[in-house]
Order: sequence, then C-alpha cells, then structure tokens
Amino acid sequence: MTAEILAIGSELLTPFFQDTNSLHLTEKLNDLGVDVHFKTIVGDRRADLVAAARTALHRADIVIFMGGLGPTEDDLTRECVAEALGVELKRDPAWIAELYKRFAERKWKVSPNNDKQADVIAGARLVPNSRGTAPGQFLDTQLEEQRRIVILLPGPPWELEPMFDEQVLPLLREAVPRQSIATRVLKVAMMGESACDARIAPIYRKYEDVETTILAAAGDLQLHLRCRKDALSEAQARVAALADELEDELGDFVYSTKGESLPQIVEYLLEVRAATIAVAESCTGGMVGERLTSVSGSSRSFLGGAVVYSNDLKTAFAGVPPLLIAEHGAVSNQVAAALAEGIRKRAKATLGLGITGVAGPTGGTAEKPVGLVYLALSDGRNTEVLERNFPGDRDRIRRYATQQALDMVRRKLM
Amino acid sequence: MTAEILAIGSELLTPFFQDTNSLHLTEKLNDLGVDVHFKTIVGDRRADLVAAARTALHRADIVIFMGGLGPTEDDLTRECVAEALGVELKRDPAWIAELYKRFAERKWKVSPNNDKQADVIAGARLVPNSRGTAPGQFLDTQLEEQRRIVILLPGPPWELEPMFDEQVLPLLREAVPRQSIATRVLKVAMMGESACDARIAPIYRKYEDVETTILAAAGDLQLHLRCRKDALSEAQARVAALADELEDELGDFVYSTKGESLPQIVEYLLEVRAATIAVAESCTGGMVGERLTSVSGSSRSFLGGAVVYSNDLKTAFAGVPPLLIAEHGAVSNQVAAALAEGIRKRAKATLGLGITGVAGPTGGTAEKPVGLVYLALSDGRNTEVLERNFPGDRDRIRRYATQQALDMVRRKLM
Repeated sequence: MTAEILAIGSELLTPFFQDTNSLHLTEKLNDLGVDVHFKTIVGDRRADLVAAARTALHRADIVIFMGGLGPTEDDLTRECVAEALGVELKRDPAWIAELYKRFAERKWKVSPNNDKQADVIAGARLVPNSRGTAPGQFLDTQLEEQRRIVILLPGPPWELEPMFDEQVLPLLREAVPRQSIATRVLKVAMMGESACDARIAPIYRKYEDVETTILAAAGDLQLHLRCRKDALSEAQARVAALADELEDELGDFVYSTKGESLPQIVEYLLEVRAATIAVAESCTGGMVGERLTSVSGSSRSFLGGAVVYSNDLKTAFAGVPPLLIAEHGAVSNQVAAALAEGIRKRAKATLGLGITGVAGPTGGTAEKPVGLVYLALSDGRNTEVLERNFPGDRDRIRRYATQQALDMVRRKLM
Repeated sequence: MTAEILAIGSELLTPFFQDTNSLHLTEKLNDLGVDVHFKTIVGDRRADLVAAARTALHRADIVIFMGGLGPTEDDLTRECVAEALGVELKRDPAWIAELYKRFAERKWKVSPNNDKQADVIAGARLVPNSRGTAPGQFLDTQLEEQRRIVILLPGPPWELEPMFDEQVLPLLREAVPRQSIATRVLKVAMMGESACDARIAPIYRKYEDVETTILAAAGDLQLHLRCRKDALSEAQARVAALADELEDELGDFVYSTKGESLPQIVEYLLEVRAATIAVAESCTGGMVGERLTSVSGSSRSFLGGAVVYSNDLKTAFAGVPPLLIAEHGAVSNQVAAALAEGIRKRAKATLGLGITGVAGPTGGTAEKPVGLVYLALSDGRNTEVLERNFPGDRDRIRRYATQQALDMVRRKLM
C-alpha cells in the first residue's frame, strides 16, 4: 500500500517553519511496509485544501492529514476532507461532553467555537487526544471502488506522536497486509562518505533485497539497512548477513550497531574501564565537554575540563609552559600534547585530551591554515598526537575536531 | 502571483532526508511579493512526477522543480516536465561542448549519459551551472491561456542557491509585477512566547497591513515583521512604526534589531567596554563557551573557562572552598557565586560567570529539582546571582541556562 502525507498550515509555507512530523510518520509507515509516495504542504485556504485532499485521495491508499483541527476559523481540515470525500460531518456528543468536563476541571470558560472540534467525518472513528482538545479521526472506506484509509491528526508533535503511535498504529496494523521488515543502523566515525561508499558498494550491491541508505554529517556516517520479506526471520537474516559483511570491511571505523551516539559509546567504554577523563579545548571552545555532558550520568566519568582560549589560560589551567607556546605556537603538536598531559594531571584523571587548532575564518597562515587542528590524548605514560586538516567553515571544522577527539578516546579504550 | 515548489527525489520520502531548499526559495520569492501556495515532495517515479507536474502547472503561476536533473536513469525531471507541458526537449549543443571541455580539463572520461543534461524544454532558457554539470532552466510560457513561469533547478543546495540567487532571481524580478516589501526582525531574550504575545498582540493587531510572525526557541524569540505596499518608503515606514512600538513595550528584553545572534551582541558589548570574560560551567558542560566561541574573533574578549563537572575541579579551577560545597551543596547560590568570583580571578578577566544546576533527567531532589539552575556574574566588586527553574528535558534545560547566562552578561554590559 502507498501513502500520502499532507501537512496543513499557512505557517508551513513561510521561510520560517517546516513540517517535521512527516519524518516520524514515514518511519512508522515504512515499518509496516507502507511507502510514502507524496508529501504535500498546503495552507489554510479552503479551495487549496479541498483540491489537495481530492488529489491525494485519488492517488494514495492511505492519506494522512496533519494540522488544521483546532477551534479557530483557520482550522478547516475536517470540513475540507469531508467535502473531498463527498460526505457529511456529524457532531460527536461524547467528545463535546469530554471537552466541557476538561474545561470545567480547569475552571476555564468554553467558547462555542470549541464545539466544532467534535465534528467527525461520517463513518470515521474519533481518536481521543489526551494532550489537547482536538481529537484525531480514522476512516476505512471505499472511494470510486478503491479502498482508502483516511487519517486526521493534530499538528503539534507533542499531540500527534503519542496519538499516532499509541492509537492509530494499532488500527493501521490491522488494516494493512502484514509484512515483515528488519532494519539495522551501523554508525561510522571519521570516514568520508565517498571513501566509505567505495568500500561498501561492492558489498551492498550483492544484497539487492536490502535497501542501504548512507547519511553523512561531519565525521559521522550512518548506514541504514532495511529488508522486507514474507517471514521476519528471513528479513532479519538478510540484514544481519549484510551488516556482518559491512562490519568486516569497515572494521573499527564502526562505532555503534545499536543506535548509540558516539558520546554514549565513549562514556560506556570509560565506565567499563573504570576510567575518567578531562579535556583542555582551545578551538572547539567547549564543544567536546558539551557533547560528553549531553549524556545523562556522564559525571561518573567526565570530570570536566578547561576552555583555554587565551595563552595565559593554557598555562594557568593546563600548565603549558609559556616558552613552549612561544617556541612552537599555540597551534602545534607540542602544545596539544602539553594540554593533554597538563589537564590530565590537574584533574587527576585517567585520560587527558588536548585540542588546539585554527577554526577560522580568520587567523590562518600559509604554514598553519584554517582547518589545521592538533589533537592529543595522554594516559600518563604515552601521549598520542594527531594532526588533521578539516574542510569547511568554522562550525564544520569545530564539529569535525570534536568528533575526531571523541573517536580518539574510543579507539584508545577499545 | 503564486508559486508551487516541487522537491524531487525518492530520498526525500524516507525518514532520513528533508527538503530544506524550499525555505531559501520561499524567502526570496516572498521578497518579490510572491506567495508560495503549495509545496510537493515526489519521488523518482515517472508517472508520479508527470502527475505532480500537471497538478502544479494547473494551480500556480510560478512552478519551481528542484532536483532530478543529473545524468542517471533516476533523473527524470526534464522529460516529465516537458511531457506535462506537452512540448519537446531539444539538446543544447553549447552545453554539450561546455561539459566535454570541463571533463577534458579534469582529464575525466565523459560517459554518454551525461549528454541528457543538455536537454532543454522547447522555448526554455538554459541557466548555466558553475558548480555542477546539470544546468537549470527558465521558461516563461502560456498554458491553456494562462501565463506560467517554469523553473528547473538542481537539487544540491551548493548548486541551487547561487544559481537561483544570481541567475534566476534577476529573470523573475523582470517577470513579476514590481512590489515593495519591507521586513524587520526583533530578537527577544528570556521571555515566554505566550507572555510576549500577550503584551504585543494589542500592538501588532493595530497594524493589519504588517504581517507579524513569532518564532520561539528556548529563551529566544524572534519577531518577524513584513509589510507589502506600492511604495517602498510606505512599507518601510509601517514596519519601522510597529518595530518602534514593540521595542517600547518590550524594552530591554529586545537584544537585537539587525539580525545579530545573542553571542554576537555579547561579544560586541564586551569589545566596546574593553572587557574580557571567563566562565566556569557545571551543568551546561561547555555550552556557554561553545556558543561564545562560535563567533569569529571571540578570542579578543573570551579568555576561556573551566568545565567544572566534578567538585574537585570546582576547587582546582575556580578556587571554590570544599567546605562551601559541603555546606550548601554543589548546586547552590553560594557555589555559583564562588565559581564566578574564582574563575574571574584565575583568568584575570573583567567578568566571571558561574553556572551550576540540575540538568536531569536524574539527580533531582524535592529540594533541588531537575531544572533548578543558579547563575552568577561577578565584576570583582559585585556578584549577582539568579535562581531559575527551567522546564523541559536535559537538552532544553541546558539551552535555557546557556541563553540566560549570555543574557545576564548582556544586561550587565548595557
């Protein structure tokens, strides 16, 4: 079966807002074996909405409308979908009662325009909304001798996601022919997208029945595998076989096969090794600390660190000798190593991480260009230093450097 | 005139990828006085693409197709749009020559499928692509006695944006009736969306000819004003009058009227006052440093700081007495003040900023719940401390705290 998703709201046709609900719905629909063939974004204009609804009902088996279910004059989805289907709306007295009860509990006055939220398309089932006043609707009907499933959902993600996941998905699961789908995500650190694809394309091309998608961010790749079969075990076996071959090919570039983020993996390895870490960051300005502490419970292994933007602070917080900076420059192999060793000692940590580089856009020279970053990791006996030239703008260079720093720690602990 | 934007590519119908080009195009179209009435996302299926093109050409004056212009079998936009228009494609020999010249310069072999990139819809003007091999197209035509402007653009933003801005916009400017539009953005720190709206709605409602849009992030609001008139001076006067009234109402909650970010404003004020700053962050884990150093040139006023996650480091880097932590707890008014004062002294900075709090999801108690954050700012004579309870999850609490910290510095320097 195929689906079309319609996002309704004039704000979604401005430069400021974007539909993101459809990504969530697409993931869930794909899991049922339903492909999305169209997405349409339409404003709060009656004629546009009726036309878009007619077009969608003509070309997709499942049509999902998001938004336009509130009590205001701009909320036209119910009546426009009914018009496109050629059926009436019927007011649901039970939902009216529910609304008046909820408003009474909060001692709010009910304005009469709230009533229209209880208007249900003839034949549709009302889907209660626990987080808002506008219920959803689910209709399984025939239109010009074609079966059509029509779903209305509220626009706010906070209301839409639980309603869809908890109430609509079970109805869809019954309505859609059962298919078995297996998925897997491999995450890969510090490998270029084209370099990775060159290595893995000969492998995944052999698996024509597994869909492989590569997503790329700075120093971070995700390989999404997906297979649809009659039997779940068969789909799982195919995905597992491809995943194994990919892991063999990519080796320790693969940092996660269960969805974990790189900071989560690093924290996990630190805990397993009963190790702690402290960081001295210059060009990344706190981004490594920020990413490590984005993980709840990170205080067990992350002691803290220093953002040593000025040379004085490199000395004050990480004990870097001023002469070393004078001799080699703040952006140097030597200063990175001194930062790692110094912060390790000051924080009494198992591992010390030091980062210094030129994030740009200014400050680059012929000898030390924008993008040049030195990263050092010290365990008290050895200090490993990497020299890298990262591409892109200031933000991208800082993201690359942060990812490289975390990956250095991961490889050290593996 | 109205526009429809079509994003073409099966990857845009997966849970992983999203069209973002349309936001850029919408902004530029709005500046010309053109409203976007529909956005359609369609995959690389011939029948779907022809149908979507027909629907769009039927309902919008300007129809923009993005993507599907490359050399592969999946790149069907040219032929499908030609079919929907009922016209032929003609191969452009000059672009073929250009392609062969470019490939020869790089010593690459031209595979014959590249030729189809030079296929131009009859009557259309080819729009050269300086950053890729697929040119765009621009057609100003009549379809069923309606004027239609049809634009084909490559999908990659890196190719699309300069092609649209530099080559297509001038053509559109000649084709679209001239309108005058004035815009203004006010940025507001640490005010809730509904609280702000309650104060400004009575004002902006008086300006029915100015469109007002509120965008909300954690502790950060943007008020976008937009007015369309026959005379530019008239539109500018209306926007300026509303902006003035809004600024009067919101006072120093407004931190920017020219598009600057809050870190940029803070850096600017620091430089103007010839002041420097150092930060000691606990719960924000480096996010304040990360945001301040996201501004190029921030090294002139941001000296650095300490990420003092562990109590030991609060003492080692910011000189917080262990007894103070024992007596009041790490998350306390007193420790925040000691962090600010200590980091100021250690870094020899004009201002010291200290942040300590419970970001959650664990670690909260009845007395000190998740979301409780203390922020302190010291100038050496006075130390100001704020106690805040921020809502949301770990990420949102950290964003709120970071924004509040930057705003505290801004207010101090104003």
